[in-house]
Amino acid sequence: MNEELRNKLEYAHRILHMEGLAEDASRGHITARSEDGRVYIKPWGVGFEDVTAQEFQGLDLDMNLLEGEGRVHSELHLHVEIYRRRPEVHSIAHVHPFYSILLSSVFKGKIHVLSQHGVHFAGKIPFHQSAELVTSKKLGEKLARILGDRPVVVMKNHGITVVGKSIEEAVILSMHFEKAAKDHLLATTFGKPSGIPVAMAKKLSVNNYNPAQVKMMWDYYCKKFDRKES
Amino acid sequence: MNEELRNKLEYAHRILHMEGLAEDASRGHITARSEDGRVYIKPWGVGFEDVTAQEFQGLDLDMNLLEGEGRVHSELHLHVEIYRRRPEVHSIAHVHPFYSILLSSVFKGKIHVLSQHGVHFAGKIPFHQSAELVTSKKLGEKLARILGDRPVVVMKNHGITVVGKSIEEAVILSMHFEKAAKDHLLATTFGKPSGIPVAMAKKLSVNNYNPAQVKMMWDYYCKKFDRKES
Amino acid sequence: MNEELRNKLEYAHRILHMEGLAEDASRGHITARSEDGRVYIKPWGVGFEDVTAQEFQGLDLDMNLLEGEGRVHSELHLHVEIYRRRPEVHSIAHVHPFYSILLSSVFKGKIHVLSQHGVHFAGKIPFHQSAELVTSKKLGEKLARILGDRPVVVMKNHGITVVGKSIEEAVILSMHFEKAAKDHLLATTFGKPSGIPVAMAKKLSVNNYNPAQVKMMWDYYCKKFDRKES
Amino acid sequence: MNEELRNKLEYAHRILHMEGLAEDASRGHITARSEDGRVYIKPWGVGFEDVTAQEFQGLDLDMNLLEGEGRVHSELHLHVEIYRRRPEVHSIAHVHPFYSILLSSVFKGKIHVLSQHGVHFAGKIPFHQSAELVTSKKLGEKLARILGDRPVVVMKNHGITVVGKSIEEAVILSMHFEKAAKDHLLATTFGKPSGIPVAMAKKLSVNNYNPAQVKMMWDYYCKKFDRKES
Repeated sequence: MNEELRNKLEYAHRILHMEGLAEDASRGHITARSEDGRVYIKPWGVGFEDVTAQEFQGLDLDMNLLEGEGRVHSELHLHVEIYRRRPEVHSIAHVHPFYSILLSSVFKGKIHVLSQHGVHFAGKIPFHQSAELVTSKKLGEKLARILGDRPVVVMKNHGITVVGKSIEEAVILSMHFEKAAKDHLLATTFGKPSGIPVAMAKKLSVNNYNPAQVKMMWDYYCKKFDRKES
Repeated sequence: MNEELRNKLEYAHRILHMEGLAEDASRGHITARSEDGRVYIKPWGVGFEDVTAQEFQGLDLDMNLLEGEGRVHSELHLHVEIYRRRPEVHSIAHVHPFYSILLSSVFKGKIHVLSQHGVHFAGKIPFHQSAELVTSKKLGEKLARILGDRPVVVMKNHGITVVGKSIEEAVILSMHFEKAAKDHLLATTFGKPSGIPVAMAKKLSVNNYNPAQVKMMWDYYCKKFDRKES
Repeated sequence: MNEELRNKLEYAHRILHMEGLAEDASRGHITARSEDGRVYIKPWGVGFEDVTAQEFQGLDLDMNLLEGEGRVHSELHLHVEIYRRRPEVHSIAHVHPFYSILLSSVFKGKIHVLSQHGVHFAGKIPFHQSAELVTSKKLGEKLARILGDRPVVVMKNHGITVVGKSIEEAVILSMHFEKAAKDHLLATTFGKPSGIPVAMAKKLSVNNYNPAQVKMMWDYYCKKFDRKES
Repeated sequence: MNEELRNKLEYAHRILHMEGLAEDASRGHITARSEDGRVYIKPWGVGFEDVTAQEFQGLDLDMNLLEGEGRVHSELHLHVEIYRRRPEVHSIAHVHPFYSILLSSVFKGKIHVLSQHGVHFAGKIPFHQSAELVTSKKLGEKLARILGDRPVVVMKNHGITVVGKSIEEAVILSMHFEKAAKDHLLATTFGKPSGIPVAMAKKLSVNNYNPAQVKMMWDYYCKKFDRKES
């Protein structure tokens, strides 16, 4: 079922791996919610660079396994509790990117928006202040509450969780947040950085993530991956 | 028309991509002006690593499309307003390189000239203090005025625009500015850097960018690209 | 003899090389102790990316060569003196990774545990404060005493020595320590980092290095190496 | 003539290019002096990754071209004036490596010896405080006087010149100096680094650069290059 979503979800894992957001064995997971309300996730122990479209497990929001097999990631709670509260969200990426994690260790609730990569993250950013894995319904609920209606939550000494209206958006926002975190951290070692004001950032964000732009960026990364493999 | 220019412009995109100045989907554009006064630019949505010689659009300075097809980059204004004011300029690169953008967030109007890469940028460097895209004639005119008669303008939280007498020069100066920005920023974290005095920098610059040197460097990067592809 | 161990030890060298912990000619060595009490080590002068399973030398704890040929690494003393004191240890990696060495030059006995990579190294970390090579029984005994019952000893201006119950564990802990050192050092340039408290780190460590996790991570790196080579 | 030296000199250029010490068009040059007193250098405009054994030019110390053709590097003065004063020197590398250049902009005459890579450079390091190219006999003499009897001279905002008893030694010392410069610079951003004392560094240096070690390291890099090419 949901073949198109499965294919797209495979590309999502390949792209985040190619771009260095899931480089080693502590990899995280990307999920997608289908039109018929199922959540798809890769089985535990399968890498971002290995998982294939047909392997994704399909579950309902109560984590009953309806499609696929294998051990289920214990952090699936993180995903279902967000899907429950955010009907417009159709994809969630939970990853442990290098600069995002360093940011989380010195985080004060905001980043300097220093380039186009940060415009979607202007203003206050939710912060989950524990490194504990999100392996229970209760912890999933807590994370979902902290996230609220925002696109990303920074998880202290752990990583990030990024949500999108589509797989494409969740993947692109994940990459952009990691780039924005790197910009922010390095710039602070170079001086007192001056960023894009919140009002202009919001205006640029509307333009940068309109459907045509998101499709253009997604196609770019799919093509880059295909070229690398050939 | 203008086959030789088109071929060179294809290499220009490939080289800046290979050297990491156009690594992701937020790519910028390089244009060239032909002897017959046409401006050539890649179509919107086509990547630096994909665009081919025959795809470039040819337009006049009023942005009438004379050759080619597809959506035109809305920032073409940036190019035509510079070409209008700088008859000696035959190529312009507008890119968003990592260190140049970080520099723009802490910029104070000058860089320490710490190696050969910076000698052409000694002294005051024009600074455009807005992250807004240059998508109107008015904004294009403003940027061109700020650039004045200089080789580069730093665009806050956005990137750089670099001009050259030829495609070769615009490409090489773009790479050198990014390297000079990196030198400048990192050196400030290592101590109080001492650079090349302006007078000596100007003297070195004359030597480094004479026609034989520019040709040697351009040939080097073309060869490097060809080797990588084979 | 001990074919399985030899094959695993070959992968161990390949993996640490692939991951950048043994990049140049100053390479270090990984040893393993077999069930019958022999210590296996690569011959002097053979690289991490070259050594093959059948080349490993087998020695007893008094460094008598029982299997193989070639010059024996003079730092074997470091390994045998640890094996003598730590019956549960079956593998030791002595390497010179970039960030671990920089850490050793500014080390104050602890690291901030900023991500999952550091949880096994929470609390006080043994520190060997001399750059001298460990080329005698006396120096080996000294290092073993400093290590005590811990997983890693930081060696000033020199590198690290990491021990594991298995080859898999020694290899994975070596990579994780280097990542943890990088996290720690970079974060200190970005602000005042806040890490995982010792009690939670210990809890996470138990989970992260249980046999299923260690096997999953080891299989991941073996697969990554095989894919790279094919 | 001097076929063996020519072949070795080709590897020397390939190795420094592979290791990132001659990455772009501003490349420098490595020379060797044969037993019959000729100095071999690549022709101007030929890259480190392209030059072949038969292309090297052979000149006497007065810069008369005896073998080969093409334009001669104007900085050959730098080499001949050192060869004149240092009979034991048989190879000189003049390169512009990234960290060495940054070091030159904040240099105070010494580096912290933070790893094995720096042991040969303990104590006072000669410093040439001008970015001017060494394109005359007079400037070559000045540089040679500043170098004195040492292995390396740091050239402000320019690069380094490294000398060796053999091609192998000049190449390996060049790589080690760049690594030592990187160690030194980064460590200063991480805290107050403590390095290897001069007396121990000198002792380690004697061991690290004995003929067997130099041959082992050289063979390692030749093998690495051959593997990369195959």
